[in-house]
Amino acid sequence: MSQTLILLRHGESDWNAKNLFTGWVDVALTEKGRAEAVAGGEQLVEAGLLPDVVHTSLLRRAITTAHLALDAAERHWIPVRRSWRLNERHYGALQGKDKKQTLEEYGEEQFMTWRRSFDTPPPPIEDDDLWSQAGDPRYADLGADLPRTECLKDVVARMLPYWESDVLPDLDAGRTVLLAAHGNSLRAVVKHLDGISDEDIAGLNIPTGQPLVYELDDQHQPLEKGGRYLDPEAARAAAEAVANQGR
Amino acid sequence: MSQTLILLRHGESDWNAKNLFTGWVDVALTEKGRAEAVAGGEQLVEAGLLPDVVHTSLLRRAITTAHLALDAAERHWIPVRRSWRLNERHYGALQGKDKKQTLEEYGEEQFMTWRRSFDTPPPPIEDDDLWSQAGDPRYADLGADLPRTECLKDVVARMLPYWESDVLPDLDAGRTVLLAAHGNSLRAVVKHLDGISDEDIAGLNIPTGQPLVYELDDQHQPLEKGGRYLDPEAARAAAEAVANQGR
Repeated sequence: MSQTLILLRHGESDWNAKNLFTGWVDVALTEKGRAEAVAGGEQLVEAGLLPDVVHTSLLRRAITTAHLALDAAERHWIPVRRSWRLNERHYGALQGKDKKQTLEEYGEEQFMTWRRSFDTPPPPIEDDDLWSQAGDPRYADLGADLPRTECLKDVVARMLPYWESDVLPDLDAGRTVLLAAHGNSLRAVVKHLDGISDEDIAGLNIPTGQPLVYELDDQHQPLEKGGRYLDPEAARAAAEAVANQGR
Repeated sequence: MSQTLILLRHGESDWNAKNLFTGWVDVALTEKGRAEAVAGGEQLVEAGLLPDVVHTSLLRRAITTAHLALDAAERHWIPVRRSWRLNERHYGALQGKDKKQTLEEYGEEQFMTWRRSFDTPPPPIEDDDLWSQAGDPRYADLGADLPRTECLKDVVARMLPYWESDVLPDLDAGRTVLLAAHGNSLRAVVKHLDGISDEDIAGLNIPTGQPLVYELDDQHQPLEKGGRYLDPEAARAAAEAVANQGR
């Protein structure tokens, strides 16, 4: 019997709407983002895909997305697991900066390197920066390992231990797993699942609020590469919108 | 060092507002109930009481209360544990019935027995009743043990094993525990903590949306009987309102 994994990227947040780099800054969903989460949950109901357990990051845009989607799907009562390892990529010193202004200030090449390079992180954030997470109690256990910036390669490296220790056991137990997270932590998962190269992952955009379903074999290999969106038309449109962010 | 337990009863639900017996029927909070949850979270912030872990029932009015209160307190990211053992008392065949109509139909004495007797449950609900939980997937593990009705004595009996297996270990680990639940599951907790007699518990009304804080010694005995409300004035008014429900 195949295993079922559902990936759900949170919808619009206050800072998406304001076009600011967010990363680990813990902003709320907008009304539009909340509606996206509910619509994602309704897609699950229509498809008869009912999560048995949900994994989220420690950021409220993913936590609230999970809450709203599951409530809409009548699955609000399932077990919840959370980890900082599912957080969005830490955006370093860019956190809190305007995307358009950053593009103008540093130019297209540097901007796209920071956004899409697999292994070049932005400059690290200072601990006394307004948008630093130093001192945030939810990361107290990380101590000196608290990220100050990350590239996607870093996200893959910190996501995979959780994937193996916490997500795979749920899948192996036959549970339908919902993973409610972020553009880059979900790109890390998809890169791993589909074996996407360090170069090709730059071109992958995961749309917001669109459940992406993977059926996996007992070796956790996707039966269908790339998985499937429950609403492929809406997912394509949403992915294009994401690709054009910051323009 | 003392242990800290915070009890939080969910605020107004759709069926509170309509004056219907609710029990295990999974109704949503009203806007007023959502505001109560947020205000409860704000009280926690003002008191500097920050939960490290939250326990909820499997009912959305408690789950959403926890979500909203913790979000308001910037503690939305803490671990979540849930159990049907924290559910509201199952109200048997009364579930879905109008409280005022029931009072008129059965008279004050029968009405108050069903509401307040420690050991007399209402008649059991039929499995084919619209408001039965038979077949609800969240209770699938219960099998034939699924309650069809409960008195407070039954609630105490099914709450205590969870208290011992899941709540006490969190307290013993030094975690500040938030327990977001219902009028009767919280009365069961308070009865146990304060050693209230089967007779006297009838007079105890727990107000909605008002955090009730217990400091416990290492034998889990309250340092102060009855705990303390963070806003005693508001708690007293809210408890009176609860006592007059159904009139």
